Amino acid sequence: MQRGGGPEQQTLGATTCVVTGGMGFLGSNLVHTLVALGAEVRVVDALVSSHGGDVRNIAGLPVQSLVASIGDPSVAELLDGADIVFNLAGQVSHTASMVDPLLDLQLNTVDHAKLLETIRRVCPGVRVVHASTRQVYGRVAQLPADESTAANPVDVNGVAKLAGEQLHMVYAQAHGLAATSLRLSNIYGPRQRLTSNELGFLPVFVRKALQNEVIEIFGDGSQRRDCLHVDDVVDALLTATGDAAVGRIYNVGSRNDNTLSEIAAMICAAAESDAGVRYVQWPADHQRIDIGSFTTNSHRFSEELGWSSSTEFADGAKQTVRFYREHPWYLSST
Amino acid sequence: MQRGGGPEQQTLGATTCVVTGGMGFLGSNLVHTLVALGAEVRVVDALVSSHGGDVRNIAGLPVQSLVASIGDPSVAELLDGADIVFNLAGQVSHTASMVDPLLDLQLNTVDHAKLLETIRRVCPGVRVVHASTRQVYGRVAQLPADESTAANPVDVNGVAKLAGEQLHMVYAQAHGLAATSLRLSNIYGPRQRLTSNELGFLPVFVRKALQNEVIEIFGDGSQRRDCLHVDDVVDALLTATGDAAVGRIYNVGSRNDNTLSEIAAMICAAAESDAGVRYVQWPADHQRIDIGSFTTNSHRFSEELGWSSSTEFADGAKQTVRFYREHPWYLSST
Repeated sequence: MQRGGGPEQQTLGATTCVVTGGMGFLGSNLVHTLVALGAEVRVVDALVSSHGGDVRNIAGLPVQSLVASIGDPSVAELLDGADIVFNLAGQVSHTASMVDPLLDLQLNTVDHAKLLETIRRVCPGVRVVHASTRQVYGRVAQLPADESTAANPVDVNGVAKLAGEQLHMVYAQAHGLAATSLRLSNIYGPRQRLTSNELGFLPVFVRKALQNEVIEIFGDGSQRRDCLHVDDVVDALLTATGDAAVGRIYNVGSRNDNTLSEIAAMICAAAESDAGVRYVQWPADHQRIDIGSFTTNSHRFSEELGWSSSTEFADGAKQTVRFYREHPWYLSST
Repeated sequence: MQRGGGPEQQTLGATTCVVTGGMGFLGSNLVHTLVALGAEVRVVDALVSSHGGDVRNIAGLPVQSLVASIGDPSVAELLDGADIVFNLAGQVSHTASMVDPLLDLQLNTVDHAKLLETIRRVCPGVRVVHASTRQVYGRVAQLPADESTAANPVDVNGVAKLAGEQLHMVYAQAHGLAATSLRLSNIYGPRQRLTSNELGFLPVFVRKALQNEVIEIFGDGSQRRDCLHVDDVVDALLTATGDAAVGRIYNVGSRNDNTLSEIAAMICAAAESDAGVRYVQWPADHQRIDIGSFTTNSHRFSEELGWSSSTEFADGAKQTVRFYREHPWYLSST
């Protein structure tokens, strides 16, 4: 499959795609797009409690689905005959990784090693796109960070995600697996679990604004982030199936970055919330793994594959708010 | 404990040291030195088959020993009251890591996470020195490599060792653990398992020379390595207990590097072997994870802690040969 300027110009008829974590935030948005593009889609998701997966995210779609860990032998059947594996399964909570380090290592590293071994056995010629995270960098002295920046993760999640990403690269180099890994920035948009406080700040900000509640910002709100709308990430995942991306790691972030205060204000404006923000002291479990500001240099991915983010945050926030108003169960899911 | 110019100037009376992997190559050499310095020494070693551990390496020494994985709950008792943990346990074979990736991740990453959790619970104020490896760097464009070089491991062993190292740094930063990790170069010397072909080239070269057999060199022998005598590594481990090293990662390599051809020739000379060397094609399982030349920039460790290697390879090779002539069981151990 070649990039053709965005999903709307592509068709994926006769392409079989496996999406791991396909009932989660990112995965389910990808599944919706893949189905719309005509692909045959197979989904595996462990539906780990309090993580992002929810079967309602893909309700009504004509996909084959399996509720299982990606490390489970049953995944072999799903992989048989696949053309592309979008490997998005994982645990994303930084704070949870510090409470249960072994679970994070299992979900983000060990299970991925098992999946890669299954792929080697069942479908060694498959194309693999893996979702990594900018969290692998940790605190960075020089921003925006590019891919030559040494990774110094500050929490177990960053360690485990980096190991998972590097396993994909080892299999690419040593075993000829056509794998790519994308270090994704903070993502927002439809189909995100809003009811957890442990999945990053964006779903919390969105939930508070939708409920007209005060948004609490840790510290002074001056930290910067480049936030990606999930549609841009779906486009990046499709773009990463291009031949030039084989065996490569890419940063994927937004062209624009803002302070947390600005981000909160734009979400409040989108939701027409007048509850505003409150600046509070850092909770200890967040502060000890805080990375300060982070902004992403995605030039390598832009230059080699032609992708760049297209959604302005203010527009994306409005679209996101509209989605959740139309799907209110996200505000009460458990 | 402060560095005092080498172990010979230190005493460790009333200091309780736990050495994980303490029956292995590096661990047992450290244990011999710690005992000589007057420390109370406790050893844990899983004695994994075909790895470096052998109870004979510490036979006759007055140490408390436990045969167990460092991830086992029984280690808690050994850690209780410890002042320093030298965390050297792990799997070192690059090729074995590609045959059984899950075992390598278990031994070099997951079990270390378990150990760190046990340490947090039992002895959070303990000093920890962890043995990492230059293998985390993988193939490097600019040599000698310093610590700012991005780590791009080429095999599962490099991935898993890097994750284990980074876990120590996360616990240092987030939990205040006084941990240091040393990225060690290729090590040779007494008490190394000579009968395996999977523990690096140095024990194979030494075995062949001792048995007056031809040394086979993969490729043309032009690859460079900086080889460390194990006594220099023991000195580095003791040095790394200095206060300035807390929360830090250091490269630890030799001031001198040589080609594999030169290294083989010096070992042959030390053993008075006239069988010579033969250049052979790379075996596929080695070639696919080959890193080319590697040399270590250890300036950070030298400048901040005052350590540098002191053993010339030709001298170290002679001392090593003498040791194995006096302890011939190393040539037939299984």
